[in-house]
Amino acid sequence: MAEKITSRNEDYAQWYVDIVLKARLADYAPVKGCMVIRPRGYALWERMRDALDSMFKATGHSNAYFPLLIPESFIHKEAEHVEGFSPELAVVTHAGGEQLEEPLVLRPTSETVIWAMYKKWIQSYRDLPILINQWANVLRWEKRTRLFLRTTEFLWQEGHTAHATREEAVEETLTMLNVYREFAEDYLALPVLSGRKSEQEKFAGALETYAIEAMMQDRRALQAGTSHFLGQNFAKAFDVTYQTANGDLDYVWASSWGVSTRLIGALIMAHSDDRGLVVPPKLAPTETVIVPIFKNDTKERVLAYAEQIRKKLPDIRVEIDTDEQNSPGWKFAEWEKLGVPLRIEIGPRDVDAGKVVLVRRDTGEKAAVAGEAVQETVKALLEKIQANLFERAKKFRDENTRFIDDYAGLKGFFDDLGGFAVSPWCGNPECEAAVKNETKATIRVLQDAESKGSCIVCGSPAKTNAVFAKAY
Amino acid sequence: MAEKITSRNEDYAQWYVDIVLKARLADYAPVKGCMVIRPRGYALWERMRDALDSMFKATGHSNAYFPLLIPESFIHKEAEHVEGFSPELAVVTHAGGEQLEEPLVLRPTSETVIWAMYKKWIQSYRDLPILINQWANVLRWEKRTRLFLRTTEFLWQEGHTAHATREEAVEETLTMLNVYREFAEDYLALPVLSGRKSEQEKFAGALETYAIEAMMQDRRALQAGTSHFLGQNFAKAFDVTYQTANGDLDYVWASSWGVSTRLIGALIMAHSDDRGLVVPPKLAPTETVIVPIFKNDTKERVLAYAEQIRKKLPDIRVEIDTDEQNSPGWKFAEWEKLGVPLRIEIGPRDVDAGKVVLVRRDTGEKAAVAGEAVQETVKALLEKIQANLFERAKKFRDENTRFIDDYAGLKGFFDDLGGFAVSPWCGNPECEAAVKNETKATIRVLQDAESKGSCIVCGSPAKTNAVFAKAY
Repeated sequence: MAEKITSRNEDYAQWYVDIVLKARLADYAPVKGCMVIRPRGYALWERMRDALDSMFKATGHSNAYFPLLIPESFIHKEAEHVEGFSPELAVVTHAGGEQLEEPLVLRPTSETVIWAMYKKWIQSYRDLPILINQWANVLRWEKRTRLFLRTTEFLWQEGHTAHATREEAVEETLTMLNVYREFAEDYLALPVLSGRKSEQEKFAGALETYAIEAMMQDRRALQAGTSHFLGQNFAKAFDVTYQTANGDLDYVWASSWGVSTRLIGALIMAHSDDRGLVVPPKLAPTETVIVPIFKNDTKERVLAYAEQIRKKLPDIRVEIDTDEQNSPGWKFAEWEKLGVPLRIEIGPRDVDAGKVVLVRRDTGEKAAVAGEAVQETVKALLEKIQANLFERAKKFRDENTRFIDDYAGLKGFFDDLGGFAVSPWCGNPECEAAVKNETKATIRVLQDAESKGSCIVCGSPAKTNAVFAKAY
Repeated sequence: MAEKITSRNEDYAQWYVDIVLKARLADYAPVKGCMVIRPRGYALWERMRDALDSMFKATGHSNAYFPLLIPESFIHKEAEHVEGFSPELAVVTHAGGEQLEEPLVLRPTSETVIWAMYKKWIQSYRDLPILINQWANVLRWEKRTRLFLRTTEFLWQEGHTAHATREEAVEETLTMLNVYREFAEDYLALPVLSGRKSEQEKFAGALETYAIEAMMQDRRALQAGTSHFLGQNFAKAFDVTYQTANGDLDYVWASSWGVSTRLIGALIMAHSDDRGLVVPPKLAPTETVIVPIFKNDTKERVLAYAEQIRKKLPDIRVEIDTDEQNSPGWKFAEWEKLGVPLRIEIGPRDVDAGKVVLVRRDTGEKAAVAGEAVQETVKALLEKIQANLFERAKKFRDENTRFIDDYAGLKGFFDDLGGFAVSPWCGNPECEAAVKNETKATIRVLQDAESKGSCIVCGSPAKTNAVFAKAY
């Protein structure tokens, strides 16, 4: 029997955990708050990493690797940075059997150690820009953790760029925000809002933080990627100046940007259902599973035909389930739980008729197809599934996004089902805090281009529309 | 002026450091013993990783990710393991602003945390084998460090497999040893000896350790990869049993195997010369650099022709050096320092004659070639360079490997230039220790098949031939 998954209606949080554990994506590690990413989860991360890495390289970036261990004093060099990260640090105090002279922190993010190195590498405008990314583990001591969404250790990429001018650094920040948006839409099939964060929500040490925000099936927002314009903050903290083309000295401008294994959580919560995981075909380690249905007397014939069908799909990531312990029904449920986008069922009658049966994971639709047409049909169906997941998620988000310009309405919205509320805001952090206190909703992004009306809280002229939502 | 590299004869150790720093492969990090892998170094690691990863997947392995933090008590569960690794541990004692109840160590290797998880995942023979690899950072507090060769933090892969039988685990151990040998020879162009280690030299917790060992240009050995047969040691330490097909309970059998960023050090020391880095074409991020030579009046013509030549090399990783600040001579030296295997020089006369000049990095040989022949010539030359680097390294190793069966001869060998000494050994650790004390040479691998003669130290019947060398 396939293990039962709690339904979303019954208990959404438990449904999520069930999928992570029962689709064998991750497991709890011995140390509280840490996780083990199991092969099926890691294969998703590998595909995400490879797609993103190509996009980073296409935009001129190279990978490098900076150390995990950072002298504690480094974190203190940028005032906002230390305030933001100090509570979350894990600290090495002993090593090699001795107490260390200076405690070392495990990187919660790498701005400080990277800018200490940039000081060594940057002298003149000819050394700029530096466009570096790293794939690494980082550690943040979190009180409440959830598999993939918030864990003490997680895997991520962090880009750290250095530029001669403010304009270039801002352009880089926005370019990478756009890379994230494209990746979310094209690969994760995840419609996202992208925009600037409020002062309250920005990265500790940034002048501006931009983010992409997605809506999960419980109508809460999930921040799926951030891109920060750091100004000259870290250059000043680490005294990184460069000689300009006309011989002056100036501080270097910076950006940083990152996405993490949290994206796996986003992918689960955006698309999956009560039968289990649903994965967009572009990210699925296995796009199609062939399940041959046979008894002793039909085994040879069915397996030979299944092998023929596999050979017709040379460009598709295919698995054949040759297991003989479990029934076809059990296998169907199992592969649905594991999120394989398309199932090909082949029984003795299909062999006789020269057909196969295709079953879509996203809709459950079944169709019989002639063996000769299998390649083009599978290809077309995988594209359809990818598109459908995006459209379905977009429709859901749009249906649960409301323009609200009265405060009572906003409170009612979040007392009820909630979603994304687009509301005019004056820019005052006190109004932002009032909304948070009364509704638990925070500003996810600002929609600078559309400011109008009166602040939803205080009624003074709005500077911008803000997207409010309860968030992960 | 290109920065000068110390010659090997002048100071071999400084030559190595010069290449690492001046070819911009790595740099010293703020924390002592740690390093930063710069983009040119990391690009080498990426190519190694991708090649190895394909080989791991082709042999049935999947990647996963286990946590960095390990409860200190886990390390103590396997007696030899704790003895081997305790002196090198870095320990987190504080996190989130509080002292931890139990200190956490940063993984020096992941057997303990992985076997704690395998206990959860393995119940029956149907759960076996587990064939998992992880790419990760590990930390070992080393007293004397050297960039790439021995650093406090390094990047590596570690395979950890679980099997129902001893035979299967031994087979896996040897299969992966062979994967490493193939990778070293085919990609790194590095001839290696592979074999079993002595009791003294084996991994803390293994029943048997196998290794591949390469000879560097100073005739010292470098251990380039290890594969361990762990027996049931970790299964017993973490109480991992499984139900066999006939219903009995047995402990699970294990292997583990790894290679690290140390391979970059091996690559440097095996092939590079006094002009800088030499990289085997298969691992070179840039296989061929085109250096156009022009003045103001010839610039357009030469650059256009260079672009045509680049287009003739669609399957080759090509860079064009369009910089106008430095002289051609400076550029030639610079690209030689950076280790690009093949240089294509194009001057105005070459354009007129429809030719290019090809210069091999390994031999310095120059040849003029017609533009139409450039694709096949470049392809053939890159293959030749790859083969030549291997042959050159093999010839050097063979010339510096000697069968020695008298102790005075062995001492003389290591007093003189040294190299690999193949000598009969009785198997007694005291004889092994005597050699180490008197010559600094250790047993790199045992050649089980060729045991004969009398022990080089004590004269009693030899059990095996041992390869002695001074090692990194």
